[in-house]
Amino acid sequence: MENIRVGIIMGSDSDLPIMKDAAEMLDLFNVSYECTIVSAHRTPERMFDYAKEAEERGIKVIIAGAGGAAHLPGMVASLTNLPVIGVPVKSRTLDGLDSLYSIVQMPPGIPVATVAINGSKNAGILAAEIIALMDEEVKEKLRAYKKGLKEMVEEKAERLEEIGYEEYLK
Amino acid sequence: MENIRVGIIMGSDSDLPIMKDAAEMLDLFNVSYECTIVSAHRTPERMFDYAKEAEERGIKVIIAGAGGAAHLPGMVASLTNLPVIGVPVKSRTLDGLDSLYSIVQMPPGIPVATVAINGSKNAGILAAEIIALMDEEVKEKLRAYKKGLKEMVEEKAERLEEIGYEEYLK
Amino acid sequence: MENIRVGIIMGSDSDLPIMKDAAEMLDLFNVSYECTIVSAHRTPERMFDYAKEAEERGIKVIIAGAGGAAHLPGMVASLTNLPVIGVPVKSRTLDGLDSLYSIVQMPPGIPVATVAINGSKNAGILAAEIIALMDEEVKEKLRAYKKGLKEMVEEKAERLEEIGYEEYLK
Amino acid sequence: MENIRVGIIMGSDSDLPIMKDAAEMLDLFNVSYECTIVSAHRTPERMFDYAKEAEERGIKVIIAGAGGAAHLPGMVASLTNLPVIGVPVKSRTLDGLDSLYSIVQMPPGIPVATVAINGSKNAGILAAEIIALMDEEVKEKLRAYKKGLKEMVEEKAERLEEIGYEEYLK
Amino acid sequence: MENIRVGIIMGSDSDLPIMKDAAEMLDLFNVSYECTIVSAHRTPERMFDYAKEAEERGIKVIIAGAGGAAHLPGMVASLTNLPVIGVPVKSRTLDGLDSLYSIVQMPPGIPVATVAINGSKNAGILAAEIIALMDEEVKEKLRAYKKGLKEMVEEKAERLEEIGYEEYLK
Amino acid sequence: MENIRVGIIMGSDSDLPIMKDAAEMLDLFNVSYECTIVSAHRTPERMFDYAKEAEERGIKVIIAGAGGAAHLPGMVASLTNLPVIGVPVKSRTLDGLDSLYSIVQMPPGIPVATVAINGSKNAGILAAEIIALMDEEVKEKLRAYKKGLKEMVEEKAERLEEIGYEEYLK
Amino acid sequence: MENIRVGIIMGSDSDLPIMKDAAEMLDLFNVSYECTIVSAHRTPERMFDYAKEAEERGIKVIIAGAGGAAHLPGMVASLTNLPVIGVPVKSRTLDGLDSLYSIVQMPPGIPVATVAINGSKNAGILAAEIIALMDEEVKEKLRAYKKGLKEMVEEKAERLEEIGYEEYLK
Amino acid sequence: MENIRVGIIMGSDSDLPIMKDAAEMLDLFNVSYECTIVSAHRTPERMFDYAKEAEERGIKVIIAGAGGAAHLPGMVASLTNLPVIGVPVKSRTLDGLDSLYSIVQMPPGIPVATVAINGSKNAGILAAEIIALMDEEVKEKLRAYKKGLKEMVEEKAERLEEIGYEEYLK
Repeated sequence: MENIRVGIIMGSDSDLPIMKDAAEMLDLFNVSYECTIVSAHRTPERMFDYAKEAEERGIKVIIAGAGGAAHLPGMVASLTNLPVIGVPVKSRTLDGLDSLYSIVQMPPGIPVATVAINGSKNAGILAAEIIALMDEEVKEKLRAYKKGLKEMVEEKAERLEEIGYEEYLK
Repeated sequence: MENIRVGIIMGSDSDLPIMKDAAEMLDLFNVSYECTIVSAHRTPERMFDYAKEAEERGIKVIIAGAGGAAHLPGMVASLTNLPVIGVPVKSRTLDGLDSLYSIVQMPPGIPVATVAINGSKNAGILAAEIIALMDEEVKEKLRAYKKGLKEMVEEKAERLEEIGYEEYLK
Repeated sequence: MENIRVGIIMGSDSDLPIMKDAAEMLDLFNVSYECTIVSAHRTPERMFDYAKEAEERGIKVIIAGAGGAAHLPGMVASLTNLPVIGVPVKSRTLDGLDSLYSIVQMPPGIPVATVAINGSKNAGILAAEIIALMDEEVKEKLRAYKKGLKEMVEEKAERLEEIGYEEYLK
Repeated sequence: MENIRVGIIMGSDSDLPIMKDAAEMLDLFNVSYECTIVSAHRTPERMFDYAKEAEERGIKVIIAGAGGAAHLPGMVASLTNLPVIGVPVKSRTLDGLDSLYSIVQMPPGIPVATVAINGSKNAGILAAEIIALMDEEVKEKLRAYKKGLKEMVEEKAERLEEIGYEEYLK
Repeated sequence: MENIRVGIIMGSDSDLPIMKDAAEMLDLFNVSYECTIVSAHRTPERMFDYAKEAEERGIKVIIAGAGGAAHLPGMVASLTNLPVIGVPVKSRTLDGLDSLYSIVQMPPGIPVATVAINGSKNAGILAAEIIALMDEEVKEKLRAYKKGLKEMVEEKAERLEEIGYEEYLK
Repeated sequence: MENIRVGIIMGSDSDLPIMKDAAEMLDLFNVSYECTIVSAHRTPERMFDYAKEAEERGIKVIIAGAGGAAHLPGMVASLTNLPVIGVPVKSRTLDGLDSLYSIVQMPPGIPVATVAINGSKNAGILAAEIIALMDEEVKEKLRAYKKGLKEMVEEKAERLEEIGYEEYLK
Repeated sequence: MENIRVGIIMGSDSDLPIMKDAAEMLDLFNVSYECTIVSAHRTPERMFDYAKEAEERGIKVIIAGAGGAAHLPGMVASLTNLPVIGVPVKSRTLDGLDSLYSIVQMPPGIPVATVAINGSKNAGILAAEIIALMDEEVKEKLRAYKKGLKEMVEEKAERLEEIGYEEYLK
Repeated sequence: MENIRVGIIMGSDSDLPIMKDAAEMLDLFNVSYECTIVSAHRTPERMFDYAKEAEERGIKVIIAGAGGAAHLPGMVASLTNLPVIGVPVKSRTLDGLDSLYSIVQMPPGIPVATVAINGSKNAGILAAEIIALMDEEVKEKLRAYKKGLKEMVEEKAERLEEIGYEEYLK
């Protein structure tokens, strides 16, 4: 059985429509992962256990998403030596600023690698970039992915130049 | 030996010049307290133990101050059923907004009673107001304190009216 | 007749869809309460009377919600020695920031225990935590509630792990 | 004895270094005024009395300055039918934004004429503009004041054009 | 023919759905007004003429509403000695903050009496409060209006207390 | 064949519904332009080439629009000596503030001429104002355009004054 | 006599320590300019005249700096067809945000080319980039300037790499 | 010769007093690094070359710090498949918010692992956490470091409890 290399956790199942993007990217890069719910506030013991055991279970990177007073990424980071990627999930008020500040403004000693508000897709890619340091196959897939991004832009650009913006917008 | 009724904790000793105000107010109201350092990020186990044991140790209210990605008040609140008062301490950037959002924007289920940025004095008074529900003597001291505030304003007002603003400002 | 222990007031009946959450939590914890409208700006005398008489009427905690230039919680706090919990209600502009700042940034001497923007549910829980200091039955219900929160997360986590995120999101 | 036409009030004597600017402008325009301290939070009854009696005492305009959760201008406005001018005083955190939002974001029905953060000078001028509607002498002084502003700019401009910016900055 | 006492102007007819509230309040208080469009940026000469002539045309108060980089209220204030009330109209981005800052943060010498974002109703009331200093009839109507606000709240409060929040919300 | 004088580029085709406004204005002023997609992040080499070659291809002004961490305008400005106009496109969170700050806050040495959030129309006009310095025909069209803006406001004003706001709003 | 090609204006002589940077850059690029004070609020007629006459006086670009409710750049832009560059000057509160929003958020039809807060140096460079479209000598100087920027960075980089950061910081 | 594993780059030598913290942490963890200046805006070609060659030169992680419109981290990330850690450096205005938004709000496809404003120390630790996935010795040092953090807090806590806050603050 292949080892799980990335743990994707989130504070609530209401974060799943955002956090699934990380899973999809890891699927694309063929990086094994698990995906579950761990609430810093409602299941603090579960969070402790998850963070404490992740390393010895073979996990290499943890992606943690949360909204509002988003303590999950920072608390997990305080309980492990693995790199932790934090995803600020936009909640009902403040347009995600509360989530962003709660995750990115960590004190000296305990970093969280923060991505954009709702930037779960980039969390998946960042995890893959880290895994790729130890796995040439993932590196190759990353290269292909970035090449794909580039080609998609070039194709759209070519089409826009050809047909003009009015036609393009239809 | 008198029971300790309020626990004042803070994430770092750099918060002490702010957090001491809470202690001073509790001294004034004759409410017993303890004052120590508990870092959510650097001593997560210590935080767990502190929060878990506070209630059975007889603590009634916890005052927790922290700055930046300020997780201490919310995490303590998730580990106890006692009322937790959070003090957002202004840190080096963002003028305390990061601290405020990280403390006040708690998700449904886990409240933190948040006071103003650097509002440690009010945290002490709020704790006393709660203790006063069970202790008429503290209630009496609160009444006297508010009366004192009022009289101080009235005296200053009288003086200002008497001597005029130019003289007053000298 | 049982005494009313919590007063829930709000600046306008347009705040009721938010403020009802506090009432529902107090129902859940079996804490008696009253619920009415008191406008700091349109009925200042009524506010004065309400705040001044609450303590002798046996009220232990006041929950006050308001939006915009939200003066109700702070003004009530200035007129009573009871703990006052403030709920910043999100209004039509500024995403609730005006409400939050107007409630939380109280001057030294007059605290308001502020919860999240639209965090009326947590205001109810915080009031119950305070009442629970004097009532073991409420304490017991609080414990059960937090246990319920935890179990709900665990069940969802288990289901997500079992069926995967794609199935879960359907 | 001449009637007092403008009441300048402030929440604390720490606001006086800002609020004195309003008094100085009224001196300049020869508009009679009084200047005192009225704290919404520490002397709510005094505030009630002041606001309730101002009109029958002959006051025409009230200038109220306060910082942080600045409730004084709005509460006074709710207790009188006189025009109330609010001055948001910058306090120790949030750069005056809390003061501004607490004063300007009044609900429909109760206006406060808000000026800039620390804009006490303009509060004095605005009061004079209102008084000038009923007093041609004040109107004349206002015209002279604005003319003076214009001439001062023109003189500085002329000097700058003449000597150049390097010389001017010395 | 009755004299027009208040001028309501706005930067664009897209502001009219907000600015009409001022007109409605002035209708209620029986204060004569005119209502037109004056754009600081698209019709600067028209703005100059309007502001310069308002006083001699007998106008007492100008209400000016604008959004975004909202220069109309401040520019009009620089061209007249009449009190100018500014209404920050919320535009498509920044939630009205740009409008608010552009209107309220006037430099020393040129005040604008700023009301809440989209607070056109309060602009109308504030204008009436100023007119009422010279017109007892308007004063009387203001008193009646505030009494009506109070009674409306009291009726709603009574109803809420009687039928409970669940019934009330239906 | 007429030379292309303005290059309109954008980071993604999702910016086109905003950026097309610039093209429409240039059509109106009869200024030749090209319109394509150049992503700073997904096609950095393409961006380099575009920026490096624009001047010798005869381009006079570059309009660059982007959202979020909007690096396109600033990076293009660093690679050319042509004036670069930046359009902050509002993206899914933060209401366009991230785009605005990323574009306008350029370090000393590398200016970007920034217009309003989503202000693509003004970007087109600004480009035309620059071109008009070298082309009297464009200058003439600009004069006509501004005259048209003025007349449109005047017509609306006249209509509003004639029929009143109630009729106007129907 | 050489024609003046750039007009540098500012709302107050207190803006001069910032605005002088634009003049210094124009000196460096050998672009003729004038520098004076024009206040939108205190000398509106002077502003009108300046803006109206600039074009026929041979001015090609106007640089306008102002702080707070910064109306000068936008009002000048409404009165001329020349490109107007706006410099938001940081004032005593709000860290320059009020200046930035008041300048950049112009309505459709009237663009202001906005640079960074206190970004007067870049305003000078941007003006030179526009002038350079019509003057190969200025273009050449711009190229040399950018080359100088590059070389300065490279030299510092080389030195840092050589001596290490500890030595460099001494 | 040992391979360099981390590249620390910054936009200007004025960022060095902040960015040196990352170097110090890497020294502590015995992770080899290089430290130089690479400006996205003043040396775009140098940035291209640096980013393009880093991977084949054996670099594993890039730490990039910049302030204001901080494009360096995002542009480097667009040119490499290595993990890029971004440090928002606080600049003269906006308290670091412009730097933070410009770095963290990257579009889907190109992640930057963002740390706190001025959080260069955490950037060093995060880089070490990534390197530690491939180097047990670094992992061991990380464990020791975190243990040290914990012990330092515990010692301070013990001392505070022993001597009390008044003595501690002396």
